[in-house]
Amino acid sequence: MNDVLAAALSRAAGHQRRFEPRLAAHFDALADPAAGGGPELPGRGRFPARALELLRELSLRGGKRLRVALLHEAAALVTAGPVPGLDAAALSVELLHTHGLVHDDLIDDAPLRRGGPSTYYAYLAEFPDRPDTARALTVLAGDLAAFLAVRVLLGPGGPPPERALAMAAVVADAGAAAVGGQLLDLERDFPPLPDTAFLHEVTAYKSTGYSVLAPLRLGLLAAGADPAPYDRELRGYAEAVGVANQIHDDLLDLFGDQDALGKPLGTDLRAGRRSYLLLALEAAGIDPAGRTPDGLRARARAAGVEDALRAEAARHARRAADLAAGWEGRWRTEAVAFFTHLPAWSVTRDH
Amino acid sequence: MNDVLAAALSRAAGHQRRFEPRLAAHFDALADPAAGGGPELPGRGRFPARALELLRELSLRGGKRLRVALLHEAAALVTAGPVPGLDAAALSVELLHTHGLVHDDLIDDAPLRRGGPSTYYAYLAEFPDRPDTARALTVLAGDLAAFLAVRVLLGPGGPPPERALAMAAVVADAGAAAVGGQLLDLERDFPPLPDTAFLHEVTAYKSTGYSVLAPLRLGLLAAGADPAPYDRELRGYAEAVGVANQIHDDLLDLFGDQDALGKPLGTDLRAGRRSYLLLALEAAGIDPAGRTPDGLRARARAAGVEDALRAEAARHARRAADLAAGWEGRWRTEAVAFFTHLPAWSVTRDH
Repeated sequence: MNDVLAAALSRAAGHQRRFEPRLAAHFDALADPAAGGGPELPGRGRFPARALELLRELSLRGGKRLRVALLHEAAALVTAGPVPGLDAAALSVELLHTHGLVHDDLIDDAPLRRGGPSTYYAYLAEFPDRPDTARALTVLAGDLAAFLAVRVLLGPGGPPPERALAMAAVVADAGAAAVGGQLLDLERDFPPLPDTAFLHEVTAYKSTGYSVLAPLRLGLLAAGADPAPYDRELRGYAEAVGVANQIHDDLLDLFGDQDALGKPLGTDLRAGRRSYLLLALEAAGIDPAGRTPDGLRARARAAGVEDALRAEAARHARRAADLAAGWEGRWRTEAVAFFTHLPAWSVTRDH
Repeated sequence: MNDVLAAALSRAAGHQRRFEPRLAAHFDALADPAAGGGPELPGRGRFPARALELLRELSLRGGKRLRVALLHEAAALVTAGPVPGLDAAALSVELLHTHGLVHDDLIDDAPLRRGGPSTYYAYLAEFPDRPDTARALTVLAGDLAAFLAVRVLLGPGGPPPERALAMAAVVADAGAAAVGGQLLDLERDFPPLPDTAFLHEVTAYKSTGYSVLAPLRLGLLAAGADPAPYDRELRGYAEAVGVANQIHDDLLDLFGDQDALGKPLGTDLRAGRRSYLLLALEAAGIDPAGRTPDGLRARARAAGVEDALRAEAARHARRAADLAAGWEGRWRTEAVAFFTHLPAWSVTRDH
């Protein structure tokens, strides 16, 4: 089994490696009006070009590109051959992600993203005495990314016309659903206080929808398969992986390794976000207020909070793996193995 | 000729009348997850449903629906028969407009829109002590409108598949171009001060692109015509109408009728926006600072500023009409008449 996993991870690394220059080339083409095949932006002025530049910088500081790997592996469920339009789909989901990050970091007033300034803070640095201008430019840069995300599927270089329509619909739906998730996420901080089911729904809409479910659907569509008959199980898989992943993310905030995370422990708890971690602490009768991270961690461990959260994350991961295991026979073994192994990986990583 | 114009205006009113219930029905369907054919939004929570509700309210307070009329008349250039997908295209351009209004009013901190609160101010009224939340919700509501604008062209009820792809690309391009125009618009307030050519480009991207050019392209595409061979003249027409219209808008701020406008004269001048009016005043050696609107108007009239601006608007309107007149023979007479008459109307209206 370790061979299968190693092969899947090696393929994922290959997808990532090949994706980076394609993303850079896409932004090159967007910046060159003569290239055609995309929206025409004003040639005059500095602001439009600067927005595109900041989207490029943020998009290229990319991280793991798990969405890209998911997309390629979803297509590989159906065929080992080359799949036209998959590159455009990868650009689309990553641009959609960029759109979300730009607006999310504005909403959260977050200075950093992927080891560099958030788009909002990049603009604030350029207009230190005009925060309104920085905010406006950030809204617009994010808007631009949203339109670019859809556009890349609709022209030359995109998927074959008979598949492009359904794929663009998946991306537009994923974009709308993610906005719905962001709206729900804001509501977390208002009474009534959210329960676990509410957090599951935030996770499903805010991140899983476009990060897992959309790549799955897009990969299958690009490869010529209709995902509709499998929608319930694809959604079940995506949501289970998403919840497992989010619980794991939340618990790392208190029980993780500070160096691996790259940020101080307890950051999210101090920000007061209603997370799986906070709900688990409350269920154990522990109030995080006024405790040091070390003191809180010790108390929470003693009360079994870490074990309970890890068990819960593992439970969701297992549910996802079981669902994916059921694809054996219908779909190609080596790609099925990727989806079977992914959930366990997502709840054991240290950052 | 007056009969032709009266017929065109009567058709435009008919398009508007039929459009309103369709728009309402579209929002009804979006709010009902069981209806299908659109993005699924979270069923839980109040925030997602409220965003959709505010988009609905703003969209339905619609005004002249000139974009809808343009779209139908563009299709009527090619055929008098029914054109499938035109209704979806009308929803698409109006949702795109809603997207722009929501974010624009946030950027401009504008309290009013179409005789009601802007989306931002509606949220501010709901969260009077949390302006950050109001701002975040406004960003997200605008984002939602953007995805919905594209989505409506990509599913059942949309244009036939073989036309939908190109039509969705037009909308995504128009959305991106409008964002580019908004970015350029923000740059107006930074040195170097914009010249007339700069203002032309702001107008072309910020409004004409999605309000005139996109409806023209969409109407032709829906009717089965390829607009590409005519792109230069369609663009020329759209830009000339747009500039004529914008110059007329700008001059109404000082030379218009306050009651017809529904806002005090000199509002834009006092806001300091670099407009065609301000450039004309400066060219005549007139500094608007410290003058009453009445005093400034008298001085400007004496210096010939009103006449010069009206002549300039008329010149662009005539250029547009001449271009449209050239479509006679290629396209259907009664629709050509609509496009020939529209420019003159756009520079004689009093609000």
